[in-house]
Amino acid sequence: MGGPEIERLIALLSKLPGLGPRSARRATLALLKQPQSRMLPLAQALQHAADHVKICSECGNLDSSDPCVICSNPDRNDEQICIVETVGDLWALEKTSIFKGRYQVLGGSLSPLSGIGPEDLNITPLLHRLEKLEVKEIILALGATVDGVTTMHWLYDQLLPYGVKITRVSQGIPMGGSLEVMDEGTLTAAMTTRRSV
Amino acid sequence: MGGPEIERLIALLSKLPGLGPRSARRATLALLKQPQSRMLPLAQALQHAADHVKICSECGNLDSSDPCVICSNPDRNDEQICIVETVGDLWALEKTSIFKGRYQVLGGSLSPLSGIGPEDLNITPLLHRLEKLEVKEIILALGATVDGVTTMHWLYDQLLPYGVKITRVSQGIPMGGSLEVMDEGTLTAAMTTRRSV
Repeated sequence: MGGPEIERLIALLSKLPGLGPRSARRATLALLKQPQSRMLPLAQALQHAADHVKICSECGNLDSSDPCVICSNPDRNDEQICIVETVGDLWALEKTSIFKGRYQVLGGSLSPLSGIGPEDLNITPLLHRLEKLEVKEIILALGATVDGVTTMHWLYDQLLPYGVKITRVSQGIPMGGSLEVMDEGTLTAAMTTRRSV
Repeated sequence: MGGPEIERLIALLSKLPGLGPRSARRATLALLKQPQSRMLPLAQALQHAADHVKICSECGNLDSSDPCVICSNPDRNDEQICIVETVGDLWALEKTSIFKGRYQVLGGSLSPLSGIGPEDLNITPLLHRLEKLEVKEIILALGATVDGVTTMHWLYDQLLPYGVKITRVSQGIPMGGSLEVMDEGTLTAAMTTRRSV
């Protein structure tokens, strides 16, 4: 439609999660309309991020500084460590501002089918931190999936020797959800973990 | 969550049509996982497109060459010119490969409410082409909106003196659409322009 430069840009954008060929075309058009104010800044932001962002050696978060903004923040609570599967999970939790402790990003969950075993998960820095810091609680914030639950059981076994309190996030009806459309697993979990009002 | 570089990238991506803050976060994470193979190529493609893509002086398409690939293609039919509102419309039509003539991109449609008048629409190159080339048919491929129809009537008046055949794209039930969910305007158009089987 508009030469190899445009085709290439559409092809690259359409590989992003959430964008398909059609929305990549719309995005490309929107960018082409404002090359100076939108396209070049995005190019530079990508270049800059590719050059500077690295994995935090303490928790596994992605940031331009190592340790990351969370690990290097002295105001955060050293007594709580929240274990998440991915950096995306960490960012989603940070959006809520509900948790003020530290994180550990596993980099995935145990999945025999995908060939992901314990050696692929990033927990060594966590075990070092458990020896050093005065950690009082470890929160398992893993997905309510088969792999997430498997990982949770395995983590529990690994962490038990350290004598620290281990908790997990609740399962139940999500905000705005109606019972009618929920699956049986969610309803069972919501019923069995019910609390007094 | 991950420093100013990441925040800036998320902010820029979230302004693209089809992406919101949440999907921009997912896209940023996907890019950060592969800085060399995905992030830098995208940065370079954007930079390259911003440097090279321009508006075709003949039809108004966007391309790295002027005249664009369509205007400079000798195999295309000079006798038909298809008038579209936007470059996005042109690209959508090109995807179908149904049309082998030339295009004219208006750059919008007449819209008294948005203050877009005839002087804002790009039809001067079209009128020059009508004098020069042996144009036999002009196809009005404008949206079936109030502004699109207004523009179509205005264009008809402008083009009438040239004594060329003027057609417009059909209105009706879109492919896969069921009559039950169609609006009255579409049903009326589909009924009144019915054809024998």
